[in-house]
Amino acid sequence: MDEMISLKGKVMSEEQAMKLACAEARRGAGFVSPNPQVGCVILSSKNQFLSKGHHEKYGGSHAEVNALKDLMPDQLQGAKIFVTLEPCAHEGKTPSCAKNIAKLPVAEVVFGLTDPNPLVAGQGAEILRSAGLVAREYQGDLKFELEQVCEHFLINFREQRPFLSAKVASSLDGQLALKTGESKWITGPEARLKAHELRAHHDAILVGQRTLEIDNPSLDVRHSQFPGHRNQVIVLLSSQREFLKKPEDMQIFSSHSPEEIFFLKPHDNHYERWTWFPGQQKWAPTQEPQIFEKSLKARLDSNSSNAKQSKTWSSVLIEGGAQVLSSFVNEMRLDRLYLFQAPILLGGASGKAWAEQVKIKDMDHKVRLRQIQWESCGSDLLITGRF
Amino acid sequence: MDEMISLKGKVMSEEQAMKLACAEARRGAGFVSPNPQVGCVILSSKNQFLSKGHHEKYGGSHAEVNALKDLMPDQLQGAKIFVTLEPCAHEGKTPSCAKNIAKLPVAEVVFGLTDPNPLVAGQGAEILRSAGLVAREYQGDLKFELEQVCEHFLINFREQRPFLSAKVASSLDGQLALKTGESKWITGPEARLKAHELRAHHDAILVGQRTLEIDNPSLDVRHSQFPGHRNQVIVLLSSQREFLKKPEDMQIFSSHSPEEIFFLKPHDNHYERWTWFPGQQKWAPTQEPQIFEKSLKARLDSNSSNAKQSKTWSSVLIEGGAQVLSSFVNEMRLDRLYLFQAPILLGGASGKAWAEQVKIKDMDHKVRLRQIQWESCGSDLLITGRF
Repeated sequence: MDEMISLKGKVMSEEQAMKLACAEARRGAGFVSPNPQVGCVILSSKNQFLSKGHHEKYGGSHAEVNALKDLMPDQLQGAKIFVTLEPCAHEGKTPSCAKNIAKLPVAEVVFGLTDPNPLVAGQGAEILRSAGLVAREYQGDLKFELEQVCEHFLINFREQRPFLSAKVASSLDGQLALKTGESKWITGPEARLKAHELRAHHDAILVGQRTLEIDNPSLDVRHSQFPGHRNQVIVLLSSQREFLKKPEDMQIFSSHSPEEIFFLKPHDNHYERWTWFPGQQKWAPTQEPQIFEKSLKARLDSNSSNAKQSKTWSSVLIEGGAQVLSSFVNEMRLDRLYLFQAPILLGGASGKAWAEQVKIKDMDHKVRLRQIQWESCGSDLLITGRF
Repeated sequence: MDEMISLKGKVMSEEQAMKLACAEARRGAGFVSPNPQVGCVILSSKNQFLSKGHHEKYGGSHAEVNALKDLMPDQLQGAKIFVTLEPCAHEGKTPSCAKNIAKLPVAEVVFGLTDPNPLVAGQGAEILRSAGLVAREYQGDLKFELEQVCEHFLINFREQRPFLSAKVASSLDGQLALKTGESKWITGPEARLKAHELRAHHDAILVGQRTLEIDNPSLDVRHSQFPGHRNQVIVLLSSQREFLKKPEDMQIFSSHSPEEIFFLKPHDNHYERWTWFPGQQKWAPTQEPQIFEKSLKARLDSNSSNAKQSKTWSSVLIEGGAQVLSSFVNEMRLDRLYLFQAPILLGGASGKAWAEQVKIKDMDHKVRLRQIQWESCGSDLLITGRF
């Protein structure tokens, strides 16, 4: 709110308004899945900042509604609305934003992206135009950022599957740990905090059995900076039916309830889904072997008409280890890499490389990341890009 | 000069003046070795910018002289001189800067670092104080940068050996090339330009025999952005006396004259120095086996009283390959890493890791880089830090 006050009356360009709408949208990260993160900024007829808002919570008001809620009709005379995604045309859990805006004395609506659902794309804009407003898709330099802001949602819609992110914490020479298994504290506290934020922004965390057994992580979101986030679902990739450690020795069984833990058994690139049966105190297969994404898609579809937020996997964060990461890279099944690099060397002769099993045919088949960005995290570096 | 005009009269803080002096010092990179890079900024009695200068060329005027040369005595009334290194006390190739400044109506001299030579440290400041000027060592936040600006020179003096930098161009997963040998164009044109600049800023380039045979590089400074730079000396690390390829097939023999190429034969961590005998058209050992740094130190010493700029190795850039880089890391003989990372993955199963032979005992013995910095080079990232 303090920020709102300091922005009040500031004259903004289209780029500035859309940039601010993107930042606003990101504030919904971790709270709105499987809905998209959306942000909205409203300028007066003289391009002065009036207000902003974002989609705050799954099932809650849309960004436009939140941005509009404290404004009077006379303030909106000739106003411009900047929103990261086309205002919705249909009545769902909330009324249609396009229809709401159409009733207001607003002059123009600039939206970052057209609705990715081809069946409704352009319908929100059409409602606005029919009401005499100017409604146009933004065409400036922020297109990549606008896509990134709701990338989980876009992949869900465009490819009918969850968005798959990989998180790696390595040395500068690509080592995840020592061959002895030692891997604690490769990166510093700021990077670990950021890694917890990444968890909070995904619906499920996927790890391999070996990582679970060696590191015994709790895989929870521990930092108080992320209040109100639900626990992520844990997906365990396991090639054998039994763990070496007993469930009671494993931290994930303390940090998560049995209903939050799923087993996927890789088998010829197919996976069985296991479910925990608390009554019998055991895991048992509950589904025929199937392709991983299909399995996830099935979950997604089966939940799309289901308001139970805790059951939808719009995004999965793959945390390792080396074998799991390598197999996802080799099978080209990743959407984004989050690579934390500590300013250390662990050495190929003593270390375990995170991409040790990644194999490309030749230089023409190298794996290239697009839209690379980096930021510092304490003394570490976070590099991210799209596959 | 245009920059000088735009700065004229600008009021500067001590930090701003010293920061500008550092930037000025860097302009001497590649031209002043084995002298230090030094920069100087002069402010009026009212802290207004008057002029700046740097040590431009080995044997040429010092930074203070260049900064002072266009100023009138009345401009210097009560002026402050900011210089990255203590003004020299002794008469060498040029007159003593401290004695020169002592004659001027300057009020204060702030120097970034005390002379690293313990035999003369503080003498320049003493000359100034005796003449009634305030002379003090800078104690602000730019100490690391001031050290970095003349780090080659500082290591030469403090440890009586050349400064050793390693340059690596790898994928995000630490691969230098494919196992097949394919390594061309891992990084983009901006990174390759920067790599040529690094060559221009070092006195010698060291490569292993295998890299020379597989890549057949010319190891020269090709970019016209670096005019006036001499060719770097090439140091070849070779475990056998004969190359598989004939000299006439190797690009370094086209890009460099025989006098610019040296052989070092590793043997129980000792090295023989070979020299090219143009009369006999062959390489032959000219020295007993000795430790590499000693060999370099001998060169350095033997040239310190020698004005032949082309014969001094104040800094060596180690360009590879994996075996050579690993051995220098393992032996803790590196001062700085320049790591170019391309936004690609080559995979541990298909790639050749640059640190493949680096071995640490345990996490407590990990190799840590200090003073990490990064910058973008086109779509690549340059990470650098001190060992």
